[in-house]
Amino acid sequence: MPLNPELHSTTQPLQQRLQQAVLTALNAAAKPRLLLALSGGLDSIVLLHLLAGLRETAGFELSAAHVHHGLQTQADEWVAFCQAQTAALQVDFQVCHVKLTDPQRNIEQQARTLRYQALAALLDADTALLTAHHADDQLETILLALKRGSGLQGLSSIAAQKPFAGTVLLRPLLAFSRAELEQYAVDMQLSYVTDPSNQDDSFDRNFLRQHVLPLLQQRFPAISQTTARSCQLLQQSLEYQQQQLAIELPKVLRQQQLDLTQLVQRQNPQRDLLLRFYFSRYDLVPSALQLREFGQVFLESAPDAQPLLQWGDWQLRRFNGLLYLLDATAQFELNAVPANGIRLMPEQQLQWQHWQFCWSQSAQPPAADWHSLPLALVMTTQLEIHTGQLNQRFKSAGSNHSKALKDWCKLWEVPPWRRGSMPFIIAGQQKQIVAVPGFASHCSAAEAQSWLHSKS
Amino acid sequence: MPLNPELHSTTQPLQQRLQQAVLTALNAAAKPRLLLALSGGLDSIVLLHLLAGLRETAGFELSAAHVHHGLQTQADEWVAFCQAQTAALQVDFQVCHVKLTDPQRNIEQQARTLRYQALAALLDADTALLTAHHADDQLETILLALKRGSGLQGLSSIAAQKPFAGTVLLRPLLAFSRAELEQYAVDMQLSYVTDPSNQDDSFDRNFLRQHVLPLLQQRFPAISQTTARSCQLLQQSLEYQQQQLAIELPKVLRQQQLDLTQLVQRQNPQRDLLLRFYFSRYDLVPSALQLREFGQVFLESAPDAQPLLQWGDWQLRRFNGLLYLLDATAQFELNAVPANGIRLMPEQQLQWQHWQFCWSQSAQPPAADWHSLPLALVMTTQLEIHTGQLNQRFKSAGSNHSKALKDWCKLWEVPPWRRGSMPFIIAGQQKQIVAVPGFASHCSAAEAQSWLHSKS
Repeated sequence: MPLNPELHSTTQPLQQRLQQAVLTALNAAAKPRLLLALSGGLDSIVLLHLLAGLRETAGFELSAAHVHHGLQTQADEWVAFCQAQTAALQVDFQVCHVKLTDPQRNIEQQARTLRYQALAALLDADTALLTAHHADDQLETILLALKRGSGLQGLSSIAAQKPFAGTVLLRPLLAFSRAELEQYAVDMQLSYVTDPSNQDDSFDRNFLRQHVLPLLQQRFPAISQTTARSCQLLQQSLEYQQQQLAIELPKVLRQQQLDLTQLVQRQNPQRDLLLRFYFSRYDLVPSALQLREFGQVFLESAPDAQPLLQWGDWQLRRFNGLLYLLDATAQFELNAVPANGIRLMPEQQLQWQHWQFCWSQSAQPPAADWHSLPLALVMTTQLEIHTGQLNQRFKSAGSNHSKALKDWCKLWEVPPWRRGSMPFIIAGQQKQIVAVPGFASHCSAAEAQSWLHSKS
Repeated sequence: MPLNPELHSTTQPLQQRLQQAVLTALNAAAKPRLLLALSGGLDSIVLLHLLAGLRETAGFELSAAHVHHGLQTQADEWVAFCQAQTAALQVDFQVCHVKLTDPQRNIEQQARTLRYQALAALLDADTALLTAHHADDQLETILLALKRGSGLQGLSSIAAQKPFAGTVLLRPLLAFSRAELEQYAVDMQLSYVTDPSNQDDSFDRNFLRQHVLPLLQQRFPAISQTTARSCQLLQQSLEYQQQQLAIELPKVLRQQQLDLTQLVQRQNPQRDLLLRFYFSRYDLVPSALQLREFGQVFLESAPDAQPLLQWGDWQLRRFNGLLYLLDATAQFELNAVPANGIRLMPEQQLQWQHWQFCWSQSAQPPAADWHSLPLALVMTTQLEIHTGQLNQRFKSAGSNHSKALKDWCKLWEVPPWRRGSMPFIIAGQQKQIVAVPGFASHCSAAEAQSWLHSKS
């Protein structure tokens, strides 16, 4: 049985409710300075006036910043308007100019990213950023998330408070509808600018704002506010889910790799949620279909299969029960050692790909985390780094016979896709393999005449 | 980065996709018999034809049931139509008659409850129930949940599969839009009935169906399907959340009471979610405001305060660090012992409220879970049960002095609201208290001449 639905206690006058909401948000954040993102439109002008009114009693420092996108012809007039409004209220004001770089890409998205970047640059740890998002924005955002088929994260919509640029971003008006903000502006005789691009319903958000919200609000006058409440509840659930998954994920990791032998023992929904949580670190948002495919390919295939999926720029591979995410674009660069090898000079550090090498008289590596191998070679020998030819044979110090490199790779559990770029060291005129950095050398420490130090 | 958005792989023809979805649902449920809820409308007629077509290859037994609400004048024609359709497909058919009892209450809600009750009566453990809910229903349901300000549970909308009446309820068409079902009906030349009450937009759902969905679908043709995907993701999150909370809740319970000293150590969002989860057992859905009030009243008040909240029919009280939910309507009946007490007859069991008593010569209680107290009284004494008068004094066997009952209550940690209805036993002409059932007696076991057995 739902108890009395709450909304705001509507017996309180609007102004008082707005002030209360702003104070509650400010108290929770407890920052001495506030920076308001001021577009000059209804929402941010209302917040400006509320903040200016509360400044003295609540005891915070207030400033405002306007981001000039250079997109609209009226942009300069808006700056002047914001300037005048803040000056009248004795609020410090500054303008940030940003420029959209890629006219082909989603303009709204780009403008948003640039706007927050510009505002972030104005913040410090003691200054909270405030934006004037309201409940209608929540409803639009949730409808757009439904249009994309988003899950809990997308649907939980706009957060009332979140960490941002080393400080906090506050949206104290999220529980109020645009109609309420309009009412406040009328009551307080506030003037504000109107962005004509808001009328352009080729933007999905504007379409919802102009056509869908009025229809819903006419039938359900409180739907923006109730939606804001729904979003708050979803945010709670999201936060809890993330906390729980952050506790569970390490249990299915080995080093930083996903341990598929552990994962396969988890049941759904936990398994899928762990996977989504894991992939979100790589900015990957797999669909339900892709997760099903992942399960078939990586959890249900024969242990000796070499499954491969290509997701966006990532190559997914399995080896030894672990999942490897490989940057597909970086793969191409790997086999870049010239056919005749790279010369390794005595006592010099050489960087190659993610490897570092140093061939030295001294047994002492350049740093503690380097790996060292003995070489029964004097420093006048010619040493080269090679990759590729996995049919070449190598006899390590401890073994009775030589074996092809590809067989050593299996023994050392080198993932197949790493074998082609695995460096090995060839010495002298005989072109014999004398060491495979990180794994083995042709001689024992007692026989050492020099040392190969390496780090990957 | 979202990967290729999936939807259905739309390269497959519609019929094949529908069949595949039905088969996938049936395979997951693995029941030999299916009962289709058949209204005769588009949705259920499409599902009837799909099921009839798959019957032989998939090897299940199919029957259909129509629920006759007696609400519309055309109801009898619909029965005849369903009868004809099922007969043509050689599907067993039956009609259930239900009658709305309370015309004052929400008609849709009542009809739905009665419909599922009637269908439940036709099921057994080997028969799955199928309904033809589709993606447009999902979108309507999620909008209605936003209108109510629901959280994860309400927003996760209609489940594709859920336990029902000892078996399972399946909705295999949830991922398809109504437009797709219409297309299928056209392709297959299916006829179906139309419920004129669907045109009545005084029902919120019909308003959404007629006005809001067409607007959204015109702009976002796939919004029903993407919403169905969102709901699926939310259901996963909900299931996971419930699983986690079911693990956590016992840790903050002592016996069946919520242990507030444990709960206060939990942080939000877990604390609020645990509370909501706990209260859902009592059919209570507290708002965020009520949870805040709960925290102030029960978690932040002085330890010796006696906080009280009234939520619906429940009285919430704290005692000894535990939360008690008391059925407020039942409270009134408790102080019902007549002023001159109830006579307790020798060797007879007496039931009073949730107590049972037996005064006996034998030290042996009627059952192992009864509590027994010795009485230094012969069986000819007059014994009475009393409640109330907490100023009366009592001297228990082990104590040096007599104390007022109210002081004993504190010592025994009897919750204050239980003290007024706590029974005590008075004996003989002197009207002396000789025992307080469950707690103490006036004599030791060695002095016993009879025994008072009790159970609460």
